[in-house]
Formats: sequence, structure tokens, C-alpha cells
Amino acid sequence: MGKGRLEAFSDGVLAIIITIMVLEMQAPKGVELGTLRPLAPVFMSYVLSFLCVGIYWSNHHHLLYLTHRVTGGIMWANLHLLFWLSLVPFVTRWMGESQFAPGPTMLYGVILLLAGVAYWLLEHAILLQEGAGSTLAAAVGSDWKGKASLLIYCVAIPLALLRPWIAGLLYGFGLLSWLVPDRRIERNVYLGRRAPEAQHAPQEGECTTENA
Amino acid sequence: MGKGRLEAFSDGVLAIIITIMVLEMQAPKGVELGTLRPLAPVFMSYVLSFLCVGIYWSNHHHLLYLTHRVTGGIMWANLHLLFWLSLVPFVTRWMGESQFAPGPTMLYGVILLLAGVAYWLLEHAILLQEGAGSTLAAAVGSDWKGKASLLIYCVAIPLALLRPWIAGLLYGFGLLSWLVPDRRIERNVYLGRRAPEAQHAPQEGECTTENA
Amino acid sequence: MGKGRLEAFSDGVLAIIITIMVLEMQAPKGVELGTLRPLAPVFMSYVLSFLCVGIYWSNHHHLLYLTHRVTGGIMWANLHLLFWLSLVPFVTRWMGESQFAPGPTMLYGVILLLAGVAYWLLEHAILLQEGAGSTLAAAVGSDWKGKASLLIYCVAIPLALLRPWIAGLLYGFGLLSWLVPDRRIERNVYLGRRAPEAQHAPQEGECTTENA
Amino acid sequence: MGKGRLEAFSDGVLAIIITIMVLEMQAPKGVELGTLRPLAPVFMSYVLSFLCVGIYWSNHHHLLYLTHRVTGGIMWANLHLLFWLSLVPFVTRWMGESQFAPGPTMLYGVILLLAGVAYWLLEHAILLQEGAGSTLAAAVGSDWKGKASLLIYCVAIPLALLRPWIAGLLYGFGLLSWLVPDRRIERNVYLGRRAPEAQHAPQEGECTTENA
Repeated sequence: MGKGRLEAFSDGVLAIIITIMVLEMQAPKGVELGTLRPLAPVFMSYVLSFLCVGIYWSNHHHLLYLTHRVTGGIMWANLHLLFWLSLVPFVTRWMGESQFAPGPTMLYGVILLLAGVAYWLLEHAILLQEGAGSTLAAAVGSDWKGKASLLIYCVAIPLALLRPWIAGLLYGFGLLSWLVPDRRIERNVYLGRRAPEAQHAPQEGECTTENA
Repeated sequence: MGKGRLEAFSDGVLAIIITIMVLEMQAPKGVELGTLRPLAPVFMSYVLSFLCVGIYWSNHHHLLYLTHRVTGGIMWANLHLLFWLSLVPFVTRWMGESQFAPGPTMLYGVILLLAGVAYWLLEHAILLQEGAGSTLAAAVGSDWKGKASLLIYCVAIPLALLRPWIAGLLYGFGLLSWLVPDRRIERNVYLGRRAPEAQHAPQEGECTTENA
Repeated sequence: MGKGRLEAFSDGVLAIIITIMVLEMQAPKGVELGTLRPLAPVFMSYVLSFLCVGIYWSNHHHLLYLTHRVTGGIMWANLHLLFWLSLVPFVTRWMGESQFAPGPTMLYGVILLLAGVAYWLLEHAILLQEGAGSTLAAAVGSDWKGKASLLIYCVAIPLALLRPWIAGLLYGFGLLSWLVPDRRIERNVYLGRRAPEAQHAPQEGECTTENA
Repeated sequence: MGKGRLEAFSDGVLAIIITIMVLEMQAPKGVELGTLRPLAPVFMSYVLSFLCVGIYWSNHHHLLYLTHRVTGGIMWANLHLLFWLSLVPFVTRWMGESQFAPGPTMLYGVILLLAGVAYWLLEHAILLQEGAGSTLAAAVGSDWKGKASLLIYCVAIPLALLRPWIAGLLYGFGLLSWLVPDRRIERNVYLGRRAPEAQHAPQEGECTTENA
């Protein structure tokens, strides 16, 4: 099954999620720059979520890059991930509008955690398909970054009820730990040079675009 | 005519439909987690519709995968399907906000039924083009799942006026019956291994994709 | 210059335009089916605009199918068309909410007229590039349908101030006249069999997918 | 790494940004054409932003057309650009609703400036990857247009606090200076005729795309 449409649909959904969040930032009623100040938590919440969806898009991009065949199971695992991510605008708005109140901040973490679990499920559905000896399996490795970020959410969620701002900072850290994983896949990809194609129609004169 | 843009446009519309529904879930005014409780029917309505649009996307994906040529008729049948699906966010919101009141729940079923009929029309417009001996015809078969789900809607719609919650459950069942049809196409596809391309590439003499 | 991204961007914008219009249809406050009645003009306005954007997408699809090279001029002509179409949700909402009042109905026609002119400009920018002997030039022909629809708008716009409902019907007629033009291109495309490719890398054994 | 999805995701985000702005133009409450008059600044603000996002899309299109490999750094530079552009609908609305008041008009300029800087960063991240002898480096040249537009914003931003309408005009000029840069790339592209592919396909021995 072609992965083209899975990527296109996911790109569409992620692009919309990342963009519609800005609709939630209502223009202030006043015309003075000072009337922006109450929007500060809304804006911070927006930045956090933009970063979050951006990272998911980037990781999703890398993950599917090394995927050769899409099965029904992968399709549903992908839709499951998109479902939790589609709730990000809702929790972003609530957390921002409530000025990082305990309840909304906790819910935000729960959604991030569930999205993280959904990503992990998608990754494993694809790994099952690709096999243990695949480029993807090597690239993902022990996936300690993914596990670490899930652990951070598990700590931050109950903490949100007591110290929501610290929880918010931990969410940010949890996201930053995802910023690097791409490297793993990227490194492996460059070792195997344009992996998916390279395995099917390789060499032909060792033409690389890197040595120029 | 290339089916690429038909897929891209449909992906775009379905991605937007599935995502903008979340805009309808207004963040609660309060900051306590308890203020989420009145949102429960809105959320359930959202989950139902997300599942519904996700299934349509998945089936649409499989259907077009086995389509070799797009005619004007197929284009309009596709747009007709997208029209009814575009009304899903409207009925989702009304059904959720009205807490599954009889009227809105009935209307929701009507839209699902009309979308189901539109999908059936699209399928048959494509089958007409592909021919009775095509891979698609074999994959679709007697389409009892499609027919069953239409039947379920026909039962659930009048029932919605008396027992809207039972109707809601039936809608869910109707959707779940669509969850499996992909298998049919998938199985057939794997028998023929990457059907459209596989039949094109190897022979290089037979030239027709239909007689394989 | 690749036309892929021009198509992708246009598909994205048109998919969003056609879908966000439904956001304007607010769910009625009541829970009775009767509360839908005041929405009738809003719904009719939505149907008209859905048809309109659908037709533009379809014609745009056919037009670019026969385009071989995209210049800066074509890019801006395309953006110009998208600009007027992006105003369709605005005028749709106003016309619907005002129950087809003279002013909004007239403005709706003006936007349709300007979009029609923008399409004509895009067509001619592409024809200039393709040349008089191109498949596209043959497919477009004298373009009497395009001209007729522009004429209909010119009649309907002033009429809207006196008899807005008749103007609305004329807009519908103007759109229906666009429903057929695709045929022209389609017919020519099939005469030349998969035109753009056919001209560069033709025959190779007269392999057609049509004769199966 | 494939640039296809980077383009697709950017196209999606830009298409949504350019289209959702129209949602901010609320239909007037009245039904007379005269009730449109207070919308004039909102409309002007919309036109300015549509032009702005359209130009960014066009430049982005040209820039990536000459890009051969996408690294993690380019991916994040691209996401950074999309972040500032995603704030355009917010500042567009505020500037329009406030009728070009000093504060909102200044903020609008700041966002345009930051987007301009982000574009410059993206361009340089790609140039670093492509090398000094690449087609892109030749096409970009000294990039005086990009620099000039950044300079215009730097002048217009403080001016907005005194004469917001003049600042608005300067923003328009800053944008128009971007309208031409495409030509640079286009000219270079046509000298090399369909650069990326043309350099790949013919030789089949030289193997490097940079030394052409």
C-alpha cells in the first residue's frame, strides 16, 4: 500500500492543527500594546503547542521515511496518533485562557502523554512490519528519548495540580528531548544513503550528492 | 486523467473536516476539571465523527488505490461525497451541544446515511469504469458491509426520535462495520502485490492493466 | 518550473475554502428540527458556494493538467484567482445570514464575476505560454461557456438589487454552464491520450489503458 | 532526506494561513452595502496579508526548487519561518479591527520583520548545504531585495507609532520589493533549464549536481 496518501493526510491534519491554534488567540479589544499583556500565557501556551506539533511532524516525517509498506494496522495507529494531537488546540486554549491553572495544565500533560503513547504504538506497528534487521530498527534503537519523555510527562501530570508552572516547564523539557531523536534516524539514513531506495536500486557507480 | 489531484484535494478536505470539528469544542469557562463534565456529550459526538471521517478516508484511500482512470463522473461523485461529509462538523456540533436530543441525533444519522449513499455511488461510478473483471470488482465483492451499514442507519434514524442514545450506539456500530472492509481490498491487493504498479511494470508487452 | 507545488497549494487553498464555509453555519440554539428552518437560506447559500468552488477546482484541475510549464506570471494569475475565491466564504455567509437581501446578493455576484475574470486571465496566461497549437488551445476553443457565464453575472448583478432571488437562480445557472466545459478538455485529452506525457514520450507500442 | 514532505507541509500551513484570515472578516450585521464601509480597514489589512503570505509561498517555492537535500537544520529553520507567518492572521485581525491604530500596526511590522529574518535564516541554512558554487547561490546573489525589505520594516516599525498609515504603505512597499526576487531564480533556472532534474538526468557519469 502506498504511503504517499498516509503522509499527505497526516501532513494535512498536522498543518491544520498547528495553524488553527492561532485562531484561538483573540485580538485584544483595546488598541494599546499594553492590552497584549493578558495574552502572555495564551501566547506561551501557543508556542509550546506549536513546538510540540512541529516535533511530532518532524519525527513522523523521519519515521515514515524509513517505512516501506503501510498496512491497515499502521493506518489505524496513525489515525489514533492524529486523534490525540487533534485535541492539542483544545487543551492549549484552555491552559492559556486559564493562565496555567492546575486542572487545565494537568489535562494538557495527559493529552501529550497519550499522544506520546500513540506515537510509540505507531512506531512499534511499523517496526513489526519492517522487521528487527531493518534500517528503521537500527535508527530507533532503544528509543530511550521516547521513553524519557513519557516518564517526564508521568512526573509532570500529578505535579501540575500543585505547581502548574513547573509542570509547564517539564512539558517543555519533555518536548526538547524529542528535538534530537531525528538525529538517530538521520545518521543511519546517511550511513545507508537514501535508505529505502538504496536497498532496492543501489550503487550504480557510487553516485553520492554528499561528496561534492 | 491523473488521480493524484483528486486524492490530494480529497485528503485536504477530509483532513480539514476531521480537524475543524475540534474548534467546536469550546474551552470551558471554569478552571476546574469538573467544568469539563458538561462537555462529555460534545466529546463523545467528536469521537464518533472523528472515527467516521477517519473510516471514510481509509476506505477512500483503498478505493482510489485500485482506480486506474478518473473520469468527470467520478470527479463529481467524489465531490458529492465530500459535500455530505462537509456537513458532519455541523451535525456533530448540534448533536453534542443538544446532548443527543432526538432531532439533532436523527439529523446526524441522515447525514451519515447520505454520505454512505454517496460513497456507494462513487464506488459504482469507479466500478463502471474499471469493469467487472477488475481487481477492484473482486476486492469490493458483494459489498455486504456497505449495505449492512446503510441498513443500520435506516433503522437508527427513526429510532433517534424515541431513543436517541440507542440510535447513537447504532451509528457507532454502523461505523465499526466499515472498519473491516479495507481488509477485502488489502487481501486482494496483496494477492496481486502492489496491484496498479505491479501489473504495469513487469510485462511490458501485455500493456493492459485490466486483464491481469 | 514544477507545477506540482502550484497544484498542491491551490488544492490546499480550495479545500480549505470549500470546508470552512460550514463553520459559518452555526448550530441552532434549539433542539427541535423546526429550529433548522431559519437556516434554510444559509444552507442554500452554502450549497451554491460549495458547487461554485467545486467547479473551480475541477476546471483548475483540467487547466493545469494541460499546462507544461509554470512561469512567474502564471503563479501570480493563480494567486489572483485564489484571492477572489477566498472571499467566497465571506459573501456566502453575508448572503445567507441576510436571507438573500439585495446588497449581499449583489456583492456575491460581484465576487463570482471577479473570480470568473481571474480564471479567464489565468487561462490566457497559460495559453500564452503553451502557444496556439497546443492541446490546451484546442481544448479551450472559443471558450463560449466561460464568456456566457461572465455575461450571466453581468446581468444578474444589477438585477440582484431588484429581485435578489432571481439573481441567485441566475448565479446557479452561471455555475451550471461551467459544469460542462471540462468535457471539452476531457474529450481532447482522450483524443491525444494522456496529453502532456504523450507529447514527450509517446507510443512505445500503442499501449493504451482504454482498449481493455 | 526527501524535500517532498517539507514542501507539502509548508504548502499546507501557508494555504491555511492565507485562507483562515478571511474567517476574521465578520459579515456585517446590517443588510445594506453601506454597512461594509467600516470593514474597509479590515479588508485592506486582509489584502496586505494575502499578498504577504502569497509572496512568501512563491519565494519558498523557488527556494526549495533549487534545494537538493533537506537536513534537520533546514527543517527547523523552515518551521521557525512558519511560526512567525502563523502569527500573521492574529496581527492582521488586530490591525484591521483597530483601524490601523499605532500599536497594532507596529506589531504587524514586527511580525513581518521576524518572518523576513526567519526567511533569511532558512535561505542561509540551505545555502550552507548547497555550497557557494550552487545554482541557488548564483540565483540568490547578493540578495539586496531581501535586505532592502528588512531595512524598510526597520524604518516603518518605529514610524507606525507616529504615522501608522505611512507605516502601512511602507509594509506594502516592502512586500512589493519581494515580488521581483523570483525573477532572479527563474532566470537562473531557465539558463540551466529545469535545474535539479536537468543536471541529474543527462550526464549519468559526473554524478554531482553541484559542479554543473
